[in-house]
Amino acid sequence: MKLTILKDFLNESIHHVSKAITSKTTIPILSGIKIDADYNGVTLTASDTDISIQSFIAKEQDGLQVIELQKPGSVVLPAKFFVEMIRKLPSQHVEIEVKEHFQTTIRSGTAEIQLVGLDPEEYPIMPGIEENKRLQIPSDILKTMIKQTSFAVSTNEATPVLTGVLWTIGGGKIKFTACDRHRLATRETNITSGTDIENISFSISGKTLNELNKILPDQNTLIDVVIADNQVLFKLSSIMFYTRILDGTYPDTSKLIPQTFQTEMVLNTKQMADSIDRAYLLSREDKTNIVKMIMREDQSVEISSSSSELGKVTEQIPVNKMTGELLRISFNSKYMLDALKVMDSDLIQIGFTGAMQPIILRPDDSSSLLQLILPYRTTN
Amino acid sequence: MKLTILKDFLNESIHHVSKAITSKTTIPILSGIKIDADYNGVTLTASDTDISIQSFIAKEQDGLQVIELQKPGSVVLPAKFFVEMIRKLPSQHVEIEVKEHFQTTIRSGTAEIQLVGLDPEEYPIMPGIEENKRLQIPSDILKTMIKQTSFAVSTNEATPVLTGVLWTIGGGKIKFTACDRHRLATRETNITSGTDIENISFSISGKTLNELNKILPDQNTLIDVVIADNQVLFKLSSIMFYTRILDGTYPDTSKLIPQTFQTEMVLNTKQMADSIDRAYLLSREDKTNIVKMIMREDQSVEISSSSSELGKVTEQIPVNKMTGELLRISFNSKYMLDALKVMDSDLIQIGFTGAMQPIILRPDDSSSLLQLILPYRTTN
Repeated sequence: MKLTILKDFLNESIHHVSKAITSKTTIPILSGIKIDADYNGVTLTASDTDISIQSFIAKEQDGLQVIELQKPGSVVLPAKFFVEMIRKLPSQHVEIEVKEHFQTTIRSGTAEIQLVGLDPEEYPIMPGIEENKRLQIPSDILKTMIKQTSFAVSTNEATPVLTGVLWTIGGGKIKFTACDRHRLATRETNITSGTDIENISFSISGKTLNELNKILPDQNTLIDVVIADNQVLFKLSSIMFYTRILDGTYPDTSKLIPQTFQTEMVLNTKQMADSIDRAYLLSREDKTNIVKMIMREDQSVEISSSSSELGKVTEQIPVNKMTGELLRISFNSKYMLDALKVMDSDLIQIGFTGAMQPIILRPDDSSSLLQLILPYRTTN
Repeated sequence: MKLTILKDFLNESIHHVSKAITSKTTIPILSGIKIDADYNGVTLTASDTDISIQSFIAKEQDGLQVIELQKPGSVVLPAKFFVEMIRKLPSQHVEIEVKEHFQTTIRSGTAEIQLVGLDPEEYPIMPGIEENKRLQIPSDILKTMIKQTSFAVSTNEATPVLTGVLWTIGGGKIKFTACDRHRLATRETNITSGTDIENISFSISGKTLNELNKILPDQNTLIDVVIADNQVLFKLSSIMFYTRILDGTYPDTSKLIPQTFQTEMVLNTKQMADSIDRAYLLSREDKTNIVKMIMREDQSVEISSSSSELGKVTEQIPVNKMTGELLRISFNSKYMLDALKVMDSDLIQIGFTGAMQPIILRPDDSSSLLQLILPYRTTN
């Protein structure tokens, strides 16, 4: 392999695959980045077994010659060092030459770096994914759906499937569900492609989706999602993002959600979030995060929390609409804050079916998003 | 105590004193912020015993009434919670009222916070400092002097005095020295006030000076420095920053600096720093940080480093001027990089007195800054 490549393009591509670089791998070859050069361009690959990312750099982009190839080939180079060194090279022009035994020389300006390369044949091959189960989601909607659900996944590795976000696809809809036994978040959206897919579901690690989120463009680009037996592939313009499907059967969470409410209210999302945030500050000092909500006849709610050491926070906030029984209910302020932060409407509906039953939050103008929080049992 | 204060002013003042807030104190009262209110304004005090910071908020600023005082008084409030809560209050107007047993109520908009306050009488009194040893330094020069020396202090707590920067004042000059047995940094400047001070020296913790640096304004304001027996007070417009003088006798470092050189060269600071940075990347993989410099007859130097696992970096950089014997010398690339980064001139002079003798770096256009690095003994 021998080529010259423009530094900025190489750096951008490294930046994309770097999300899959791990220093903690037990498979030595995975501490490297694989570089494949052919007459179309250069492909970088990094993998931590959970995620694999490939980024392609085309030979020519917008009339600019990005790569000058003298000899095609492949090599695996030590990732951490390669990433940092390329960033610090003195010239825009970077020459990479691989000789016998994968001895690699990088030249740029006055600097010459000799690297011990590894055999690319030892690098795991990306899974071949049949494209029969394939759909498209706009990037911005996918980003929002990840943001609105992934925070609610379980952190308990004893039940791996719950550390993921469940994707349920069918009937022209896609639904995300995350649940950690104390709270649940669901968000659904209509899809216009892949409508032939009927009732499949799988769980993808919340952490992985957050990594994907960083790569997804903010613009309204369509992202191809290809689903295989144990892998899902996300195709962006020049990036292929592979992720493993989590083992295990996701529990049926539909029965958790009450269909009718004893008390319902509509209130200002930001006012409620700010008030819970203040109560949270105090409640977390006692590590309980307990906040109390008392509904009042004058169409207001009182939010309060107290800490034996520090003191007490009390706040009255007005309610736009309130129907049903006036309740006193306690809950985890951190969970409530997480749920309120991802509500993208000015007003929210909150539904209660009693002091010991799930609290349901929805945007006032949409039923596509739902957040459920289990209340705390408290004595008063 | 009862007053109403504008939130932004209170927050700015909290931000200043927060550098001295510690959560690791063994003296419970120091986990609080002391608030003193009188007819002139409000003073906040925080202290971790090494540093004490007082910030004053005047009652009126630029014709704006910042504080409305109903009753003067003092209280100590739990720092961490107070800092975060004030930032999150809903209204610009913050009412603070202290009742019996230092029970404190903070009101802002719809929020009411009850806090368990502590007795301000238990809070340590700031040391009274006689103003007979007093000088002034422009803020920007003080900031530069701290930046150019404090990185070279020792991190070994066994010799506390070496974890500080030595201040030597006399003859109308002030000199900073930092030394960790492998390297030394000195910087001096002329002073126009305090010229009556003759030959005093004291060591102030490098960490403390870095905290002071964050508070010092970037503009060319004069900072008052008041020196007492075991404390130094820095006076900014509305901030009093007290710091302890470190115990122990600072060693005489003057003999470490060679007066004549066997080899001298002038080279481009940035080119040298970038080259050393690349060599450092590889050298740190072996945890030795060893970089080799070979002087060549063609008025260039070769910078190289190697790692048994990764490979080798080699670079030729041109030298503007070189006189004396051509040496091969090895040194710690991290120390060299630290020294090069604080050189504020385009060209630097480097002086050598042999492969086992100290390396001296100075800006080409000034003798007020000097960096010394001890070389490594290597076999080739």
